[in-house]
Amino acid sequence: MYYTASHAELIHEHKGYGFDVEFKGFDWKQVKKSRDDYIKRLNGIYESNLDKSKVDKITGHAMFTSDKSVEVNGELYSADHILIATGGRPSIPSIPGAEYGITSDGFFELEDLPKKVVVVGAGYIAVELAGIFNSLGSNTSLLIRYDQVLRSFDGLISKGVTDNLEVAGVKIMRHTEVSKVTKDSEGILTVETNSGTINNVNCLVWAIGRVPNSDNLGLDRVGINIDKHNNIEVDDYQNTNIKGIYALGDVCGKALLTPVAIAAGRRLAHRLFDGKTDLKLDYTNIPTVVFSHPPVGTIGLTEEEAERKYGREKLKIYTSNFLPMYYAMTENKVRCNMKLICVLPDEKVIGLHMIGQGCDEMLQGFGVAIKMGATKAQFDECVAIHPTSAEELVTMR
Amino acid sequence: MYYTASHAELIHEHKGYGFDVEFKGFDWKQVKKSRDDYIKRLNGIYESNLDKSKVDKITGHAMFTSDKSVEVNGELYSADHILIATGGRPSIPSIPGAEYGITSDGFFELEDLPKKVVVVGAGYIAVELAGIFNSLGSNTSLLIRYDQVLRSFDGLISKGVTDNLEVAGVKIMRHTEVSKVTKDSEGILTVETNSGTINNVNCLVWAIGRVPNSDNLGLDRVGINIDKHNNIEVDDYQNTNIKGIYALGDVCGKALLTPVAIAAGRRLAHRLFDGKTDLKLDYTNIPTVVFSHPPVGTIGLTEEEAERKYGREKLKIYTSNFLPMYYAMTENKVRCNMKLICVLPDEKVIGLHMIGQGCDEMLQGFGVAIKMGATKAQFDECVAIHPTSAEELVTMR
Repeated sequence: MYYTASHAELIHEHKGYGFDVEFKGFDWKQVKKSRDDYIKRLNGIYESNLDKSKVDKITGHAMFTSDKSVEVNGELYSADHILIATGGRPSIPSIPGAEYGITSDGFFELEDLPKKVVVVGAGYIAVELAGIFNSLGSNTSLLIRYDQVLRSFDGLISKGVTDNLEVAGVKIMRHTEVSKVTKDSEGILTVETNSGTINNVNCLVWAIGRVPNSDNLGLDRVGINIDKHNNIEVDDYQNTNIKGIYALGDVCGKALLTPVAIAAGRRLAHRLFDGKTDLKLDYTNIPTVVFSHPPVGTIGLTEEEAERKYGREKLKIYTSNFLPMYYAMTENKVRCNMKLICVLPDEKVIGLHMIGQGCDEMLQGFGVAIKMGATKAQFDECVAIHPTSAEELVTMR
Repeated sequence: MYYTASHAELIHEHKGYGFDVEFKGFDWKQVKKSRDDYIKRLNGIYESNLDKSKVDKITGHAMFTSDKSVEVNGELYSADHILIATGGRPSIPSIPGAEYGITSDGFFELEDLPKKVVVVGAGYIAVELAGIFNSLGSNTSLLIRYDQVLRSFDGLISKGVTDNLEVAGVKIMRHTEVSKVTKDSEGILTVETNSGTINNVNCLVWAIGRVPNSDNLGLDRVGINIDKHNNIEVDDYQNTNIKGIYALGDVCGKALLTPVAIAAGRRLAHRLFDGKTDLKLDYTNIPTVVFSHPPVGTIGLTEEEAERKYGREKLKIYTSNFLPMYYAMTENKVRCNMKLICVLPDEKVIGLHMIGQGCDEMLQGFGVAIKMGATKAQFDECVAIHPTSAEELVTMR
C-alpha cells in the first residue's frame, strides 16, 4: 500500500521530468487482489517451511493448565520448553460506537478507497495509514491527542512528519479525542470529538496503540508475571519467571517489530538447543523505519534521551537539511532532514534520525556501523557516494 | 537524466499498482532546460563559495615554467604549494570519422532525444548513458569489446548489468569495435564495425575511457613524473616527485570519482596547513554506485581479487537473489542480487557487491561498517529493517 501511494505521488512528478501523462483512474480492487494474493503466497511459503522442518502444527486456542501443560481443543500438551509468541492486537477505545471503527486489520479488508477518512492515533501505524489514504485521494483527517505525531521519536522526526503530513494535505486535528461515534442507515459515520463533530465519514480507523495477546492464556494458572499493561515480563534472555516458559515478540510489549521477534527467537533457539548459553538479543540500537511520505529512519537515542543520559555539554550534534537532487526538477519539493547525535570526547554516534527520500534503504548499513560503536570520524573515513542523499551522513560539519 | 529515465520506467509500472495512466509525450527540451538551470545554479553556489573564502580566481591556461612558477595569460605566479587538479577528459579513438561521435559532454548538449543511438564502451559511463537512452525510447545499441560490461567489477555485477541491459531492450554487440564512421548530408551516421555496419544512426557516443589532462601543463619543464598512461604519479600523500607540487583527482588516474578528489583534497589541505602531518586518503574500500537500471552498489574486493589475495579456501561467500517486494505487483520483475565476500577465520567482510532497486542509497552505511572492519557476525548483530531490500544484507545464510 505504501508503494501504491508512492506511485500516486509520482504521477504528479512526471511533469517535472518532461512527461505528459494523463491520470484516468485508480482501481483499489485490483490492488487489493494483487496484494492479498501476494500475502497468501507468502503465507503458503511459511506453512510449507514449517512442514519441511517437520513441525507439528496444532490449530486452536491454547491455555496453560495449572501443571504447566497446555490445553488445546481438549488435548493436553507438555514440553521441556514452552514459548509464548502470541503477539498483540490493536486497541479500541471504550466509547459509545467504537465498534463502527476499524483497525489496521480492517484497513486490509477495505473493498474500496473510502472518500472521507478519520484516522485516530499518532503512532507509526496512524501516520502510515493516513499517508496512504491521503496520497490515494481520500479526504483524510488525523486526530491526535497532543501537538505532534510520533512523539516518542526524536524531535526532528516528530516535527518533520507532522509538517509533511499537513503539507501533503492531511487535516491534523490536535488535542483531539473521540467521544462518540454514530452510524446512519447508509453506513455513514458521525465522529464526535472535543474539537467538534466530523460528519459524512466513510471510514474511521483506530490506530491508538496495541495491546498484548496475553489474556485467556491461563498465565495466572502457572503464575507467569505480567506487568500493568498486561505485557509478559521476561528477562534479557526471554525467560519468564517460570522455568522452561519463555516469551518474545509483541506479547512482551518491547520493540514491536517483526524482525525483533525473529531475532529474539533465533537467539533463544540457539541458546536452548545449540549450546550458545549466553546468547540474547540486544534491544539497544534497533534500527526502525516508518513508511511515511517521505520515509523515516531512526536508530539509537533521541536528542532528549541523550541529553538526559550524558548531559548537554557532552553532546555534539550534527544536522543537515537539504533538497535531494530528485526534487530539483519536480513541482513538490520534499526536503531531507538528518541528525547525528554524538557523545564526547570521541564523538561516538549514539543516535541517527532522518526523514527523506531513500531513508528506508539507507538506514540498515549505518545501523551495523552504529552497533559496532562507530564514531563521527569513522563515518567520515568512508568516501561519500555522489550523488546520493546518504552521502550527507558522512560529510556533516 | 537517471531520474528522468526512472520516471519513464515507472510509467510502465503504474498499471500493476492500479493506476490507469495514459502516456502522451516526453519533452526532452524541457528536461534539458531544467537540468542546465540546476547545474548553473550549483556552479554559481561554488563560485560564490570561492569568493566568500577570498580565493583569487585566475581564468586561463596554466603552464609550469622551468623554475616551478606557473604562467597564465603571460603572468607568472609562484607559491610554496602548487596543486594540480586538472581532471580528465573522455577518450576518442583514432579512426576515420571519430569526430562525428560525441562524448558524455556532448550527451549533455543534445537538444533532442536521438531516435537511434550507438554507445561504444563497457564502463559505467557507457552503461549509464545506454540505460538512459533506452529507457527514454531511443533505439539503443551498445558496442563492447568483450563479452560483458563493467568487466573490472565483480562477476555478479558485470553479468547482472549486462543481462539487465539486454532484458530492458538494449542491443549489445559483443566483441565489436568501430573501424570507421561516415556522415551523410542529413547528418545521419553510418557506423562500420568488425561485426557489421550500423545504418541510420542519429547519435554515436564514445564512452571508451578517460584520459588525464596532464598534457600542455609543462610538467616536463619541472620534471614531474607521469606514468605510461600520462597520469601524474603521486605517493600516498598526493606528493608528486617535485617538492611542493601535489596532484589529485582524475589527473592521477586512480578512482575517478568526484568525492575521491574532494576527500583527497581535504586531507591534503589539513596535512599541509592544519598540522595533521600524517593525514592521507585511504584508497581501499571506496564505495561506488553505478546508476544503471537498477543501480549497482559495490565496495571492496571482487571475488576474483579476494581469491587471488587470500586463496579460495580462506573465503566464505554469501549470496542472495530475490524479488524486491515492490515488484510483487508490477509487470516487469527486476530481481535484486547481492554478494558478501568474507575472509576466514572471523569472516571479516572484504567485499560487498549488489545490484537492485535502492542499492544506491543502501551502500554508504555498509561502507562505513566495512571500513571499520566489520565481520559477518557484526552485520547480523543489527536487527533487520522489514520490509526493505537492505535487510537481506544482515540476514544472509
